[in-house]
Amino acid sequence: MVKMGDGTVNTIQTFNRRTTPETGAPRLALLREAMQAANVDAFLVPRADAHQGENVAACDERLAWLTSFTGSAGFAAATQDAAGLFVDGRYTIQSRIEVDEAAFSILRHPEDKLSDWLRNALSPGRRIGFDPWLHTAGEIERLESDLRSAQLTMVPCPNLVDRVWKDRPPAPSAPILPHPIEVAGRSSSQKRAALSADLKDAGLAAFVLSLTDSIAWLLNIRGADIPRTPVPRAFAILHDGGNVQLFTAPSRCDDRLKSHLGPDVAILPPSDFEGAIGALSGRIGVDKSSAPFWISDRLRAAGQDVHWARDPCILPKARKTDAEIAGSRDAHLRDGAAMARFLAWLDAEAPRGALTEIDIVRRLEAFRAETGELRDISFETICGAGPNGAIVHYRVNESSNRAINPGELLLVDSGAQYQDGTTDITRTIAVGSAPVEACKPFTLVLKGLISMSRLHWPEGLAGAHIDACARAALWAAGLDYDHGTGHGVGSYLGVHEGPQSLSRRSMEKIEPGMFLSIEPGYYREGAFGIRIENLAVVQTPEIPGGGERKMLGFETLTFAPIDRKLIDPSLLTQVERDWIDDYHREVLNRISPLLDEKTVSWLRLACSAL
Amino acid sequence: MVKMGDGTVNTIQTFNRRTTPETGAPRLALLREAMQAANVDAFLVPRADAHQGENVAACDERLAWLTSFTGSAGFAAATQDAAGLFVDGRYTIQSRIEVDEAAFSILRHPEDKLSDWLRNALSPGRRIGFDPWLHTAGEIERLESDLRSAQLTMVPCPNLVDRVWKDRPPAPSAPILPHPIEVAGRSSSQKRAALSADLKDAGLAAFVLSLTDSIAWLLNIRGADIPRTPVPRAFAILHDGGNVQLFTAPSRCDDRLKSHLGPDVAILPPSDFEGAIGALSGRIGVDKSSAPFWISDRLRAAGQDVHWARDPCILPKARKTDAEIAGSRDAHLRDGAAMARFLAWLDAEAPRGALTEIDIVRRLEAFRAETGELRDISFETICGAGPNGAIVHYRVNESSNRAINPGELLLVDSGAQYQDGTTDITRTIAVGSAPVEACKPFTLVLKGLISMSRLHWPEGLAGAHIDACARAALWAAGLDYDHGTGHGVGSYLGVHEGPQSLSRRSMEKIEPGMFLSIEPGYYREGAFGIRIENLAVVQTPEIPGGGERKMLGFETLTFAPIDRKLIDPSLLTQVERDWIDDYHREVLNRISPLLDEKTVSWLRLACSAL
Repeated sequence: MVKMGDGTVNTIQTFNRRTTPETGAPRLALLREAMQAANVDAFLVPRADAHQGENVAACDERLAWLTSFTGSAGFAAATQDAAGLFVDGRYTIQSRIEVDEAAFSILRHPEDKLSDWLRNALSPGRRIGFDPWLHTAGEIERLESDLRSAQLTMVPCPNLVDRVWKDRPPAPSAPILPHPIEVAGRSSSQKRAALSADLKDAGLAAFVLSLTDSIAWLLNIRGADIPRTPVPRAFAILHDGGNVQLFTAPSRCDDRLKSHLGPDVAILPPSDFEGAIGALSGRIGVDKSSAPFWISDRLRAAGQDVHWARDPCILPKARKTDAEIAGSRDAHLRDGAAMARFLAWLDAEAPRGALTEIDIVRRLEAFRAETGELRDISFETICGAGPNGAIVHYRVNESSNRAINPGELLLVDSGAQYQDGTTDITRTIAVGSAPVEACKPFTLVLKGLISMSRLHWPEGLAGAHIDACARAALWAAGLDYDHGTGHGVGSYLGVHEGPQSLSRRSMEKIEPGMFLSIEPGYYREGAFGIRIENLAVVQTPEIPGGGERKMLGFETLTFAPIDRKLIDPSLLTQVERDWIDDYHREVLNRISPLLDEKTVSWLRLACSAL
Repeated sequence: MVKMGDGTVNTIQTFNRRTTPETGAPRLALLREAMQAANVDAFLVPRADAHQGENVAACDERLAWLTSFTGSAGFAAATQDAAGLFVDGRYTIQSRIEVDEAAFSILRHPEDKLSDWLRNALSPGRRIGFDPWLHTAGEIERLESDLRSAQLTMVPCPNLVDRVWKDRPPAPSAPILPHPIEVAGRSSSQKRAALSADLKDAGLAAFVLSLTDSIAWLLNIRGADIPRTPVPRAFAILHDGGNVQLFTAPSRCDDRLKSHLGPDVAILPPSDFEGAIGALSGRIGVDKSSAPFWISDRLRAAGQDVHWARDPCILPKARKTDAEIAGSRDAHLRDGAAMARFLAWLDAEAPRGALTEIDIVRRLEAFRAETGELRDISFETICGAGPNGAIVHYRVNESSNRAINPGELLLVDSGAQYQDGTTDITRTIAVGSAPVEACKPFTLVLKGLISMSRLHWPEGLAGAHIDACARAALWAAGLDYDHGTGHGVGSYLGVHEGPQSLSRRSMEKIEPGMFLSIEPGYYREGAFGIRIENLAVVQTPEIPGGGERKMLGFETLTFAPIDRKLIDPSLLTQVERDWIDDYHREVLNRISPLLDEKTVSWLRLACSAL
């Protein structure tokens, strides 16, 4: 999909500013007219689309269109007199740059509550409009309960942004493609049979699915409607007989796909969705935390018995098949080879002081494209030099772009979508000689990575129970990082995929076959950022000498060198030194066969023992 | 309180079997007659008294009287045709020995549910009697909800065991003593002022207190009604004005106590409790998880507005004052000196092969008594030689008593009640030469103790978040232990005191000033048990070089040597070796001034560097 390049040709990531603050006020004025016409006193504009995924198609970028804010999370609310943009702590600085604060007050979520803002902005009896497709049933239920005493009413209505957004891009309708059984490891009919048996056990006649990755996983299909996540936009109903109704434009489905889906999957136009919901009978499962309000509202309007439950695809999707694990190993070696070429190039070029962050993002993408297997990147590359590295979700653009200076740290967090696996890797590199003050925190972060990578634990534990193991070395020095230690990862699906995570907030059991990132970090504001990230799969490890209890542990999937210049070996135990040396030996052995001789020479040095 | 002895005189712990199985059937027959007379079809016999503490007075040992089971947790239920004794996994073996299984089926709690047993044993419409003082409101509410569909009714009634227990001991009525301000560090009036302000903030007019240690803490009083826990049995009502009504026999309170309590604490006979409850007005706080059903039932019968909330003493009681921390340091040095004398004696005597477990328990108690400060032991000593050490809650009696053989491990878990502090320490000792197979697991357990003792963590974490740090070394070898890593400890109160604990189940925030035990272990069934336990207080540690964030950490309180013979130094990192050597240096420095020359000579060797 991407032309092989010399570092300048690049078709995936772009760096121009996509919005300007000046459009905020006139567009808000248009929205207010539409509110008046629709007889609502307020309207909510979330970043989400109807599928509540992390990424949305261009036609769903309503929040960016209205407010100019381009972050990946947030929402706005407008009345005739006030408008608020709610963003979380990551986006405080970015929102100030992108948004016209005369039009939109910037509020901090979740500290500032939408319901409090609405109660302040509106007098009793007022009506708050919302698009029933863009909010979950749970979200609306909470809002209704918080607003009841203020006598404010939630009113579903057509999307008012769409009414005034003249040049709104058309909805994507990329062909839907089969995801081969060799990669998936389990046929859709097997998955459907297992899930329908569970539905029957739970007394459910059907389950309405709205998460695009659940549907893609269940039917072994992939798409290209949404950037960075290879899924089609669609809804589906799974019946207790194992058959599925898939609601998506039939024109997107060719004969090959139809034969892949088989006779038990009916492809129906989206306009049939409402009728199909009305025609259901029995108890119907809906996931309150992800299904649009529209679905449960329609089910209830049709007199259906709605039962709240977790989307039944979520847990089996997270337990990867042997084929998915094998595919991920291959994908990571390919990606590791691209990373090695990138790191060798960086080592040669960066110390000259002539590169910028954008040059680096482009070149890394090109190395990935040159594998010939790249379908997409898995997220916008985070590439922060010096102080930019300390901004955890930094995305470079032409105005923030920074030259890379010798003696600085460079943090590069990036990933790829290959058909056999999704990757996500962070390396922090010293440009030229290592800045002395970074070596101790880098080594402490590395100790955290090693500790988590080596950890064994008994079955039944969750991220909350083991997250500390990645932090103890930093804590001992009075340091910490303000993000989770790791997230789940999809198999040629979302780079962030639940339900498991390595976080003090996660009580979700970690199970064999789950993918997790391990990415401790340290950020010194105004100076530098450090993060080291490998992906790993949960396995049942061999215990030397046997042991008495079944344990779980990580098998590392990511193979790319960790900058030895930044490691202070005096802070490592012998076991930790051995881990690093073993890891680098494996990197060299596994990646070298995929590399040219020059890169292998570089890699040999990068992987030499401490 | 205890005569200085030569190892044979001993007034606290006894080792004769207190019950025999033969009494079970005739006493059950008596209870069944009483059930018939009271018109109930079943009756519940819990181990608890009206205060839900861990220990109960002799007059409250109804479960042991009826079933002959003497464990510290469990309950029985009887119908005319069936009787069940519910015990947890710790007590399976002990209950089989103590109980007549022809009279009582032994069930495993919580796997076997009381409500299921009752539904099986009784036909619809039957009435289940219970003593409303011995069950919490929460417990009865759950039972009622579980039994509703089976049409079984819970009926409060007088205690039917008491009706047929002819030689039931009288209720204890030991004098109530002031707990000096120098030890408590905070006056009762200060505590009451702070808590009553909280009550007002929460819109409560009063809070009914039923936990004896809450009342003892709030009023700075202690008692001797209950073995091992120096509290008086009493109830109290804290009012939002800071005044307290204390319900207990006025004859137990002398003038010194009255003046200590001051004018805002009214001493009233227990017979006034019901009237006082009826006379309350406003919203009344009750702790559903500990207050007897009787209290909330009476409140509701009197038309009061009952508000469920946590006993307001629990959290401030757990945050120890500086005086309590200082007192605990002193108590632990005194206790450590007694332990050193004991360990030196054991080292000289045990390898000769002439000692039994009972000899050892007696001698250890005598060393503690010889401090002249011993008020009570804090729990029945666990002293298990060889395979007995693998029984986590083993208590020696004359029939289980085992000779100590050279080459075995001996696990001794014991503690003392001194006025300035409650201690709890476990040491595992090699009798003579160390058994080779025990050294690796002992060293892994020790690594867990060191790891937790050295850990720093940011404020806001709970036991669930850090418990893994004490286990990671065992997990790496495929080993684990089936108990929590540590429990809270009172200040001359219960040796088990919440709410905090070091356990994967505890989401209670760990705060500065809290006491916790750190006691990882390893148990090889039929062979040996290992546990190493120190008490520690949560503090804000000095971070070398400063650090950026406020961290919490442990200050170790317990000072007694850890058996060097069992340590395999090759399994320790340099940091761990340094910790052990530093710890032993501190033991020697701090304990020696309290010891005779001969013991100091022994201690010098026991504390020498690895």
